[in-house]
Amino acid sequence: LLAGFGPPPRAAELPPGRLATTEDYFAQQAKQAVTPDVMAQLAYMNYIDFISPFYSRGCSFEAWELKHTPQRVIKYSIAFYAYGLASVALIDPKLRALAGHDLDIAVSKMKCKRVWGDWEEDGFGTDPIEKENIMYKGHLNLMYGLYQLVTGSRRYEAEHAHLTRIIHDEIAANPFAGIVCEPDNYFVQCNSVAYLSLWVYDRLHGTDYRAATRAWLDFIQKDLIDPERGAFYLSYHPESGAVKPWISAYTTAWTLAMVHGMDPAFSERYYPRFKQTFVEVYDEGRKARVRETAGTDDADGGVGLASAFTLLLAREMGDQQLFDQLLNHLEPPAKPSIVSASLRYEHPGSLLFDELLFLAKVHAGFGALLRMPPPAAKLAGK
Amino acid sequence: LLAGFGPPPRAAELPPGRLATTEDYFAQQAKQAVTPDVMAQLAYMNYIDFISPFYSRGCSFEAWELKHTPQRVIKYSIAFYAYGLASVALIDPKLRALAGHDLDIAVSKMKCKRVWGDWEEDGFGTDPIEKENIMYKGHLNLMYGLYQLVTGSRRYEAEHAHLTRIIHDEIAANPFAGIVCEPDNYFVQCNSVAYLSLWVYDRLHGTDYRAATRAWLDFIQKDLIDPERGAFYLSYHPESGAVKPWISAYTTAWTLAMVHGMDPAFSERYYPRFKQTFVEVYDEGRKARVRETAGTDDADGGVGLASAFTLLLAREMGDQQLFDQLLNHLEPPAKPSIVSASLRYEHPGSLLFDELLFLAKVHAGFGALLRMPPPAAKLAGK
Amino acid sequence: LLAGFGPPPRAAELPPGRLATTEDYFAQQAKQAVTPDVMAQLAYMNYIDFISPFYSRGCSFEAWELKHTPQRVIKYSIAFYAYGLASVALIDPKLRALAGHDLDIAVSKMKCKRVWGDWEEDGFGTDPIEKENIMYKGHLNLMYGLYQLVTGSRRYEAEHAHLTRIIHDEIAANPFAGIVCEPDNYFVQCNSVAYLSLWVYDRLHGTDYRAATRAWLDFIQKDLIDPERGAFYLSYHPESGAVKPWISAYTTAWTLAMVHGMDPAFSERYYPRFKQTFVEVYDEGRKARVRETAGTDDADGGVGLASAFTLLLAREMGDQQLFDQLLNHLEPPAKPSIVSASLRYEHPGSLLFDELLFLAKVHAGFGALLRMPPPAAKLAGK
Amino acid sequence: LLAGFGPPPRAAELPPGRLATTEDYFAQQAKQAVTPDVMAQLAYMNYIDFISPFYSRGCSFEAWELKHTPQRVIKYSIAFYAYGLASVALIDPKLRALAGHDLDIAVSKMKCKRVWGDWEEDGFGTDPIEKENIMYKGHLNLMYGLYQLVTGSRRYEAEHAHLTRIIHDEIAANPFAGIVCEPDNYFVQCNSVAYLSLWVYDRLHGTDYRAATRAWLDFIQKDLIDPERGAFYLSYHPESGAVKPWISAYTTAWTLAMVHGMDPAFSERYYPRFKQTFVEVYDEGRKARVRETAGTDDADGGVGLASAFTLLLAREMGDQQLFDQLLNHLEPPAKPSIVSASLRYEHPGSLLFDELLFLAKVHAGFGALLRMPPPAAKLAGK
Amino acid sequence: LLAGFGPPPRAAELPPGRLATTEDYFAQQAKQAVTPDVMAQLAYMNYIDFISPFYSRGCSFEAWELKHTPQRVIKYSIAFYAYGLASVALIDPKLRALAGHDLDIAVSKMKCKRVWGDWEEDGFGTDPIEKENIMYKGHLNLMYGLYQLVTGSRRYEAEHAHLTRIIHDEIAANPFAGIVCEPDNYFVQCNSVAYLSLWVYDRLHGTDYRAATRAWLDFIQKDLIDPERGAFYLSYHPESGAVKPWISAYTTAWTLAMVHGMDPAFSERYYPRFKQTFVEVYDEGRKARVRETAGTDDADGGVGLASAFTLLLAREMGDQQLFDQLLNHLEPPAKPSIVSASLRYEHPGSLLFDELLFLAKVHAGFGALLRMPPPAAKLAGK
Repeated sequence: LLAGFGPPPRAAELPPGRLATTEDYFAQQAKQAVTPDVMAQLAYMNYIDFISPFYSRGCSFEAWELKHTPQRVIKYSIAFYAYGLASVALIDPKLRALAGHDLDIAVSKMKCKRVWGDWEEDGFGTDPIEKENIMYKGHLNLMYGLYQLVTGSRRYEAEHAHLTRIIHDEIAANPFAGIVCEPDNYFVQCNSVAYLSLWVYDRLHGTDYRAATRAWLDFIQKDLIDPERGAFYLSYHPESGAVKPWISAYTTAWTLAMVHGMDPAFSERYYPRFKQTFVEVYDEGRKARVRETAGTDDADGGVGLASAFTLLLAREMGDQQLFDQLLNHLEPPAKPSIVSASLRYEHPGSLLFDELLFLAKVHAGFGALLRMPPPAAKLAGK
Repeated sequence: LLAGFGPPPRAAELPPGRLATTEDYFAQQAKQAVTPDVMAQLAYMNYIDFISPFYSRGCSFEAWELKHTPQRVIKYSIAFYAYGLASVALIDPKLRALAGHDLDIAVSKMKCKRVWGDWEEDGFGTDPIEKENIMYKGHLNLMYGLYQLVTGSRRYEAEHAHLTRIIHDEIAANPFAGIVCEPDNYFVQCNSVAYLSLWVYDRLHGTDYRAATRAWLDFIQKDLIDPERGAFYLSYHPESGAVKPWISAYTTAWTLAMVHGMDPAFSERYYPRFKQTFVEVYDEGRKARVRETAGTDDADGGVGLASAFTLLLAREMGDQQLFDQLLNHLEPPAKPSIVSASLRYEHPGSLLFDELLFLAKVHAGFGALLRMPPPAAKLAGK
Repeated sequence: LLAGFGPPPRAAELPPGRLATTEDYFAQQAKQAVTPDVMAQLAYMNYIDFISPFYSRGCSFEAWELKHTPQRVIKYSIAFYAYGLASVALIDPKLRALAGHDLDIAVSKMKCKRVWGDWEEDGFGTDPIEKENIMYKGHLNLMYGLYQLVTGSRRYEAEHAHLTRIIHDEIAANPFAGIVCEPDNYFVQCNSVAYLSLWVYDRLHGTDYRAATRAWLDFIQKDLIDPERGAFYLSYHPESGAVKPWISAYTTAWTLAMVHGMDPAFSERYYPRFKQTFVEVYDEGRKARVRETAGTDDADGGVGLASAFTLLLAREMGDQQLFDQLLNHLEPPAKPSIVSASLRYEHPGSLLFDELLFLAKVHAGFGALLRMPPPAAKLAGK
Repeated sequence: LLAGFGPPPRAAELPPGRLATTEDYFAQQAKQAVTPDVMAQLAYMNYIDFISPFYSRGCSFEAWELKHTPQRVIKYSIAFYAYGLASVALIDPKLRALAGHDLDIAVSKMKCKRVWGDWEEDGFGTDPIEKENIMYKGHLNLMYGLYQLVTGSRRYEAEHAHLTRIIHDEIAANPFAGIVCEPDNYFVQCNSVAYLSLWVYDRLHGTDYRAATRAWLDFIQKDLIDPERGAFYLSYHPESGAVKPWISAYTTAWTLAMVHGMDPAFSERYYPRFKQTFVEVYDEGRKARVRETAGTDDADGGVGLASAFTLLLAREMGDQQLFDQLLNHLEPPAKPSIVSASLRYEHPGSLLFDELLFLAKVHAGFGALLRMPPPAAKLAGK
Repeated sequence: LLAGFGPPPRAAELPPGRLATTEDYFAQQAKQAVTPDVMAQLAYMNYIDFISPFYSRGCSFEAWELKHTPQRVIKYSIAFYAYGLASVALIDPKLRALAGHDLDIAVSKMKCKRVWGDWEEDGFGTDPIEKENIMYKGHLNLMYGLYQLVTGSRRYEAEHAHLTRIIHDEIAANPFAGIVCEPDNYFVQCNSVAYLSLWVYDRLHGTDYRAATRAWLDFIQKDLIDPERGAFYLSYHPESGAVKPWISAYTTAWTLAMVHGMDPAFSERYYPRFKQTFVEVYDEGRKARVRETAGTDDADGGVGLASAFTLLLAREMGDQQLFDQLLNHLEPPAKPSIVSASLRYEHPGSLLFDELLFLAKVHAGFGALLRMPPPAAKLAGK
């Protein structure tokens, strides 16, 4: 069923609703240029005064209101945009300053109470970084680091050091490897962000915070993965020791993608079984969709992000065939259009739709981001 | 009319809208495995980040908003989920840690003001446990106990002891046997929760708080039951001595089910007459519905829960035939479906629909819960 | 036109939409039993947890929200329910404790700010009983008294004495006989409640507050009634001496009904002319409707309560024929139905519809209430 | 075009949608009785408890909410009702006490923050009478005076003296004749109210505040009127000296009507040209409509009140023919009906529709109001 | 394609939906009279009490609520109205006082928190002028100056001096030429307002703040313009040195129009290429539309203002042909109508539609405004 169906189609054969060929997306770094649809996505992210998500540092969230993004999801939206922007900086030196500027805005907005206020509303405290909440502070820490990698600017360096220290100390103090999101809720994917953030910090400062990674990989491999199915379980709850008895495709795809930047062999070991477990190729091999868990034929259940995160994973693993099949599944039904040079989707397929398609299209690989060359000079400005 | 119509149908004959046979539900403990639809209900309760009712300890109630559960009803929703979870722990040792985790979340959420705020809004005070309000604190106390029975964890032990003492002292101080809900509003079913909570405490701590039960059973038998009809009256009001002159099926079914865990003979005495009074078998014996009070042909009037609580009672009494007939009445019209391994009802038949069907399907018996073996070891974790 | 059309129909001939015969309603006290529809109305008032108007003492008003009762009207709703409950206590000794309990709840709810908050919102002060506002405190005082008459309980005795004293002193201090509602707004019907409350107090405590009644009757007879038409004017305004130049059927019916309990001759004097002025018999004598004021053919204008209060007056006067004609006019169009033993009206004809029909159906007469025998013993309880 | 078409029609010939003949309206004072439709308007204003605009002194504005009157317009609604009520007191001695009572309520309501709160919301200050805001305090002062003229009551005398003094001193201090509404916004019509209020004060107290009127009339004649067209300009702005370059029919009609009570010759001088400029007779002379400004064929533009204020002016000038034509234009399209003796308009033609029709129908003339005989005795009451 | 199609049509040939000929608009200053549609626009801006945008100085924004203008856009609406009003003062001496009055109101309203509150909501501070926010304070400063130029009044002189000093000092302190809007967001068009405001200040006070202009023009010419395409880039971000890689028609048209008042040669240099890049003539030369950015055929994307600002630029450059073509494109689809002498658009084509059409129709040129003769005398008034 997963047998190949030949190379992906050429531009002349672009299916309706696809905006560039898979070859084009994979060739961006070599060509030092993003594809036209990625440029149009950057216009969506940047062009319209007051409205575009990256218009200003201010705590205004018009763009997310227009998309009806729930408050709890805004933090992920900003973060996945940010990871895509880091790759844009790698692809095209001429866009590096813009990507750096947008990363600055991403960090600024992450710190708005509108983004992290769920923590206080849930009754967990008034400080979103002092303990737990790795679902928020992991992304923030990774964004601090990517901002400095891309721009060379030390604007957030003190905050970055402070938060990295918090994360390191909390990992060290916990009886398990990692940090919970809500109290007693441990998610492997959110920890993958946190550990990756340590690698970025080390890259910037020559430290060795990433040494903690080995214990984490051992822990999740031993307790949180089903090796036969190449799948992580949904979550772990330290207080009771409970592991939720469902495997999760979005959890696995996200985690394997990020781990691949730290320990490529780990992800390579599970990737084939992951595909066997979750991916369904259909339409005579032209498309593929991903079931969120086992024992179902429905694609994209639960949070609705299985296919989109698998697209990112396929990109991370260099799996052009699956990337192409998944994008054929995801993008045309969303009815994309480019109006006045800006990309929009009439029917986005999930709550993080344009974010994850953008990220997957430009993604240079988390390892490549870690190895990003410094900017030609610290970017102009103050 | 109540004569049997042969054994319940086999799986091959499952009526449309039924998800497992009655035999399957009753065989779960023997098989140490829940049925697939119960597993799908657990997925509904646990799977989706931020949305599922048991997603986190935080004071967020998205799941109940999506179900349009009125604020006053959330406390019952959480409690009946919790009682079902205790049986899940008994059925399948592999699910015991998950059940324990979910019970922890249930207790945490019960303490959110969103759950008990009606007490303050009604003008009865700012502390929901210091006096009266047994409709809230009875469930909370029973949940404290079941949590510790299932997990062995002493996390809530101090709170449990404090609240048990409050309940005991208040019973002792009252001129009647039990505790009111709102001031001067005495409900036998809420007291059945409170007394059962004393039995659980005794089981954990070797105390004899349950000694108060005899006086309570004498009181309700003498003053609050119509022995001919096997039915409890709706409520009692100590200030005036008024007993509301309507018998109530949901009140009786709930109460007899819980009393059966403490004094099986009591419930066995009234169960046949209860059925004669309230249950109407129809559709050539395939289905049964329950009228809420006397002098009516309408099923499920009042709070709309007569058939659902009778389903629980039938399960408690081991009455497979009536359980089957009631589930045939209740579940198919609700249009159940399992999407991405998660159960949902398109047209839930009442405000506690999935809660009570889940509870009745897994219910091991309140006596069995009291005799639950301790966990293999205190569950892993802190 | 008002000539008789023979006795009211027997049960066999109940018109559609009528729930019992007029004979049945008038025979309740003799039979010591309420009619089935009255029992179903009591179920509406009492049965459903959290929802029924008399569910609890708490300041929750779900029942009135469901009926869309405006905030200013809730006080009247509770009061007219209460007066009907006092008659229920007279009719059936077995329901006396329930009626007493419901009266307790009625008094409790009357004291909630939700009921009297219009006084503060209008800018008249923060204490709803210290001065004026007889539209509120008259009912409250009458309810205090009826509660104690029905139950023998001294629960509200101190409050009752305090408020009776306020009313007495305010009457004594005013340059006119009675007390205003809003400042400078004098309504005869609200004063009829206040004076009647003095008679109840006297009955309980052997005082002679009711001595003030004579001066009041003289005043309203001299200044506020049109003797030719047997009708009270709408209102009186002491500051200007203005009497609003419209006669009002609802005002008159309410007032004559209550005065009849204190001075039967007064009401008997005006009742025939009241009927000539306002009542229109139609449908070949089977039905009657009431115009709210003079010079119009429209029934039930203004606040919409002319026919309903006239139904109460007909009951008070023992006028079975008019009672029957009015109920034929009022009840069938409201589409009554009894579901699960509880009465509901699909299209209630006014803002106090079920309240006034209930009251009129059970009303034993205000004089009879004043002469109510004490309870067999103080009702059980504290 | 303005040539006559014979006398207005008799009752037998009342056009559909007209409620009385023009002759009837002009004959009310002679007959000492209002027409039936005016009585029905008074019922609308007074009859329904809690709902009618003149129900109580309280700061409740249900009547205006039902009419969707914008907050800023409520002050005018109350004021024009009040001026009509003063004429009702002149027409029928039996209604004088009611009119006095309603004027008391009008004054009370004017002082509610709901009426004047726009002043604070606009940022002009927290005291609506200390400076400027003549659009509010002019009406309030005139109402104080009319109340005392009608009732003889000194209830508001101290407030009246205080506000009259403020108005007098502010006129004296200003470099122009009169007082602004919002800062720097001078309207001639609002000043006509203020000056008229001085005449009423003088009538009550024998003072000579009205001496300031001559300078005002000189100023507006010199600077704010177009003598050729018999029309006032829209507004004057002292800071810049700007006069808005549009003539306004509603401004002129209102102002000439009030000035006619102080200096009849002034209004008589401009009235014929006003009619030539603004009034369009149509439907073969049966109807007339008024354009709001020059250079347009549209009637009733701008605030939508040109025809309604011209109706008042025609009444003030004794111009029965134009009054009849305008009422034929205004009243039938509004679909009037009298239900239960109360007048309502299904489609009121403007934001002050029933107010201005009522006022014009009863208006005795501002001069006649100034000469109103004192009440037979101070009206009964306190 | 841009070749001429002969002179614009005469009045006899006005296309449907056009309100005056282009010749008429360009002839207003010579005729010392505005066209009838401009007069009707002034009526829209001034006529209706409480509703018109220029009704009063108060912080009421009814006019913008009716137009659904987003809060952030109100500041621009007021400013562009103000610039048009300054030209009205130049065109017709008889309207100069009105224009001065309206400019006073414009300044007053600009200072309302409703206009600048986005600054505080975004978290940038509580003082909208102390630093950055040139998008707000640039307009305010230019309006202060135009007010004094038009009226001769020193009412805002102290505020004007204070803000001019802030702007001057901030420019001097910045490492780039100009001031940002939101932190790190530099827009050339907002700076064009700020620099122009210095020229107006110099004209009033004989200072030489405008000396800073040369460095600014050098900077934007060197870094922010694409000379081949005659187009400014969207924005500049000093922190990262990023220039957003999209050229913007609205940005360029606005900026070139204002710069033309300071350095005509600068704008003349780029105007032809600007037209080649962005303007598309269509409908056989009768109409023209403007694309917002490169690489698209869609007109008026992004903020939707490309054609409208180009209309202003065409007017500034004296390009009657393009002005005519653009107005043919813009005005008819908006369905203009003049009702009761007031102009309204049924379907305004953008968020600043009537503002920019008004401004372009009357615009005398920014240079001409700088050279505006003083008022005959300081306008009358205080």
